Amino acid sequence: MREPGRRPSGARPGPLTAAPAGWGEPRASEAPAGGAAGAPQRRRRRRGGPRSAHAEGGRDDPGEVGDERCDHDDRPDRQPDPERPLLHRLTSRRRSSSRPTRSAALRAPAARRVPAPGAGPAVRRARLDRGHPLRYHRAVPPTVAETLAAFAVELTPAAVPAPVWRRARDLLLDFLAVALRGSRVPSSAAARRAARALAPAGPATVLGDPGRLGPHGAALANGAAAHALELDDVTETSSLHPGAVVFPAALATAEVVRATPREFLAAAIVGYEVMGRLGDALNVRAHYARGFHPTATCGTFAAAAVASRLLGLDAGRTAHALGIAGSLAAGSMQYLADGALVKRLHPGLAAAAGVLAAHLAAEGLTGPRAIIEGERGFLAAYSAGGDPARAVAGLGRDWQTLGVAIKPHACCRLNHAAIDGLLAIVRAEGLVPGDVARVTAWIPTSSVAVVAEPQALKRAPRNVVDAQFSLPWSLAVALRHGRASIAEFADVGLADPETRRLAALVEVVGDDALDAVFPARWPARVEVRTVDGRVWTTEVADPLGSPRRPLSAEDLRAKVESLLEGLVGPRERRALLGNVAALDAFGDLGTLLEPLAGLPG
Amino acid sequence: MREPGRRPSGARPGPLTAAPAGWGEPRASEAPAGGAAGAPQRRRRRRGGPRSAHAEGGRDDPGEVGDERCDHDDRPDRQPDPERPLLHRLTSRRRSSSRPTRSAALRAPAARRVPAPGAGPAVRRARLDRGHPLRYHRAVPPTVAETLAAFAVELTPAAVPAPVWRRARDLLLDFLAVALRGSRVPSSAAARRAARALAPAGPATVLGDPGRLGPHGAALANGAAAHALELDDVTETSSLHPGAVVFPAALATAEVVRATPREFLAAAIVGYEVMGRLGDALNVRAHYARGFHPTATCGTFAAAAVASRLLGLDAGRTAHALGIAGSLAAGSMQYLADGALVKRLHPGLAAAAGVLAAHLAAEGLTGPRAIIEGERGFLAAYSAGGDPARAVAGLGRDWQTLGVAIKPHACCRLNHAAIDGLLAIVRAEGLVPGDVARVTAWIPTSSVAVVAEPQALKRAPRNVVDAQFSLPWSLAVALRHGRASIAEFADVGLADPETRRLAALVEVVGDDALDAVFPARWPARVEVRTVDGRVWTTEVADPLGSPRRPLSAEDLRAKVESLLEGLVGPRERRALLGNVAALDAFGDLGTLLEPLAGLPG
Repeated sequence: MREPGRRPSGARPGPLTAAPAGWGEPRASEAPAGGAAGAPQRRRRRRGGPRSAHAEGGRDDPGEVGDERCDHDDRPDRQPDPERPLLHRLTSRRRSSSRPTRSAALRAPAARRVPAPGAGPAVRRARLDRGHPLRYHRAVPPTVAETLAAFAVELTPAAVPAPVWRRARDLLLDFLAVALRGSRVPSSAAARRAARALAPAGPATVLGDPGRLGPHGAALANGAAAHALELDDVTETSSLHPGAVVFPAALATAEVVRATPREFLAAAIVGYEVMGRLGDALNVRAHYARGFHPTATCGTFAAAAVASRLLGLDAGRTAHALGIAGSLAAGSMQYLADGALVKRLHPGLAAAAGVLAAHLAAEGLTGPRAIIEGERGFLAAYSAGGDPARAVAGLGRDWQTLGVAIKPHACCRLNHAAIDGLLAIVRAEGLVPGDVARVTAWIPTSSVAVVAEPQALKRAPRNVVDAQFSLPWSLAVALRHGRASIAEFADVGLADPETRRLAALVEVVGDDALDAVFPARWPARVEVRTVDGRVWTTEVADPLGSPRRPLSAEDLRAKVESLLEGLVGPRERRALLGNVAALDAFGDLGTLLEPLAGLPG
Repeated sequence: MREPGRRPSGARPGPLTAAPAGWGEPRASEAPAGGAAGAPQRRRRRRGGPRSAHAEGGRDDPGEVGDERCDHDDRPDRQPDPERPLLHRLTSRRRSSSRPTRSAALRAPAARRVPAPGAGPAVRRARLDRGHPLRYHRAVPPTVAETLAAFAVELTPAAVPAPVWRRARDLLLDFLAVALRGSRVPSSAAARRAARALAPAGPATVLGDPGRLGPHGAALANGAAAHALELDDVTETSSLHPGAVVFPAALATAEVVRATPREFLAAAIVGYEVMGRLGDALNVRAHYARGFHPTATCGTFAAAAVASRLLGLDAGRTAHALGIAGSLAAGSMQYLADGALVKRLHPGLAAAAGVLAAHLAAEGLTGPRAIIEGERGFLAAYSAGGDPARAVAGLGRDWQTLGVAIKPHACCRLNHAAIDGLLAIVRAEGLVPGDVARVTAWIPTSSVAVVAEPQALKRAPRNVVDAQFSLPWSLAVALRHGRASIAEFADVGLADPETRRLAALVEVVGDDALDAVFPARWPARVEVRTVDGRVWTTEVADPLGSPRRPLSAEDLRAKVESLLEGLVGPRERRALLGNVAALDAFGDLGTLLEPLAGLPG
């Protein structure tokens, strides 16, 4: 199959075709030889870049275009050079920007990680993406994927503003508690068993399970656990659940390459930024209307960016990972029809798919450049009326991470404002369930189909997923118990006659006036009528936990404590809270996560 | 988290919560005890079914519906019983059908396989899908997924008509040769490296590589290899590539459960039947127009059906696997814009996703019942104007497997009829490239955008994928070399000035008249004008290799020989041909595939 004499001088296939070793096995040491050894070695930290343009010429190399091929030039120029590839020009422009935050945010990081011995792809280079169109179509502007990729690899932890960094730590703490508690749910255990059946061992932590898995399986298992309780974080503008995707992808990959907790958190921030932006660009209402779950679809791209960064891919290869992710983005909303458990898997499936995409790109496989905005790309195929500009607007300046809500109630976020309003009335007036004759909740009209229809099902959910997506049930739960945490949504309550009676008292109405602010804000209005004819109304502009009304440190600590109670002891809970707060000082993730270990699978 | 006292009598969690063992490790032996031991043990062969309705009540069990729950009744009734679950009634109706072929095809098979010791999921039962809506919504008709699932698990090898069985053997032979040759391509090696980086070991064969992988990785690697050359089989009506998905999913799973080659082939036939039907139901033109690759999307469901059957799942759980597959179905056509290599991965990604879906369902995770036809299901989300009835029409009577074409030329099937026509003229008239002034090819109008536009790119492809999807290039290659096999599409030819000159002589025209028969048939008309003014025209109604114009045994043997030449010796080639012909007699897949072993990775 090889064409003799077609190999460019200065490269040989030896190190590229060596059979890779397994985790922890000694890797075959094959020194690069021939001309490659004498090639310029500038900026070798990232995989790809200058070296890849010299690599072996395989028969299916899309870059075999003769004279048009050029090499990267990595001189630290500050001025755009029309002869340089566009992605580098893009970077250069950014570096010379007069906006200090953005400029700082995009400065190239110093060398910062050492791959584990035998850590898999991160210590090999690949050879198939020399033909990236950037090399010869210099006149075209960078695509959305290329712009996101440049951001993903170039953001430094030091350039992340302090409020964003603190917020990311809160999100991590929330994720760890939610996922550990979620790991106890049978659907999470089933996901772990399936992952283990497909690949029984690996280096990556599985939360709530003493056994480790490979990065694909661990991402799946931890993502499934994090979303099992409907208690994980959520964006306001596009109702994505980023933490359940981003952290599992980051954790699984970071452990394989032995990244520091600081590197891990920076990669997670990249994931939040990419995921939220894709949600904004997508026109999420049309995406939902087509039948897609944006957490799963946008999450696949975000996970690919996260994993690419941690694997040390360069911007070009990260763009290919995003392109490949476009052939893995999936997640059906059909689960709404029968409360199918696959919904809980969506973040895990997305995290695993993104990890896979990054590994494929790391080995040199290529994806389409315009996977987001192209004629057959993500926005066109999965939605309508999307705006690709929103996917890249304000990168490194406006932080999506700050727009993520932490959920106090264990149900669909669409229900939260109404629960807050109901609880406010009930608490202020000292009402008990027997006092209430009718509860009316006005919500944005687009939410009605999700949480209020069909009425019969929403008033008598068949399972916990149904219950969590029912506003009548959620309000009944809150009225019956005075709160709506995981304990109150347990299936023991599904047959509770009193909750069923209360759910039948709830009426949900779509309100055009609320549509005007949704989904920028997630408001609701609640009216309570008592059996003796009294009426109270309250309007909640932002549910508790939203960026405008964040959980206090004490609220978050209380949520974490309640989730971890009975799973780990008080000393471990204190240690975890302290560890996450002091995350920057930790040298490795294992020590940081130590307080969560020890649960049986 | 457990609710004390909520566990139904007659079940205990012991055997279900045991940590699964790795491949080949001894499995913890936990005898079922308590009431379960005394439960009826009819038809325990399939996972799920009677036993699962008694299993433990976890908190997220969607089946907690009290009195409405019922047990399966497996008496061999011939008359539908309104008290029996619908899937069983469906089966009963079929069994009492007066059409002998269909009735035979759907007869329940005898016990037929023994899972390998420690073979993972196949020896455990799961517990989460008791809440399948079939159990209490008895009035609803079976969904598409449920009907396909019943077919998938109940087809017996003996019930497959002999021509279908022979055809499947031909398709297997073609797959093995194409995939082995395809394994030599750098993109295939890259896919293997990525799979190995994610999970370095396992029990499943990787074609063209001495190392084995887990079923997920092996399905990915073999699917990528099978599609790397654009030489794999293709359906006529929906232009799907089933073999590159179905065989990798079947092979990876069959090896884990140690199925016989006969069982393996029967599972592959199930895959062809499911995949082709989904392609027909989908309205594939609208699917393409949205930007989706039907090989990847329909392939995910087919692979899930194949893997479910081989894992021994019952029909209910197989339906869940199809439902879960609906959250994994993906594959972007955006690769057309720049010839991205991810296209080659699509069948492998689909095969791996289907294997994952089956394992998740095996562990008890549930998917939506109406994943195909539902309001937010596959047909609605990924296409427009689909017809779910076509997905189930003629199951077990009309065989999709017979409608699959084997490709003689190494390019997009849309190009084949025109190549056949051109070669017919050139050979009949003894023309040489220098004689030709112009080649005009009329093809169905919908094909023009895929293989003829943009003209500049199609006349000067940048890479092999571009070339294979260019009709001008394919005709130039055929004219230059007198054939269009993998050797002629190698990238060494991309810069060939003579091929470029000839490609510029080709004009492609969309022809409304051909649209009338496409895609039921794949016709073309070709006109050749010589420099001295002579003109010939020919019309090809069906390209060589189509079901109406199949490759002869000799043609297929020649294709296999040419693909394997230089990879395995003549004795091994003969042995492989003989082994596949005598497949029914083999006890295990390892012996059957032995002639293909020994290539370096």
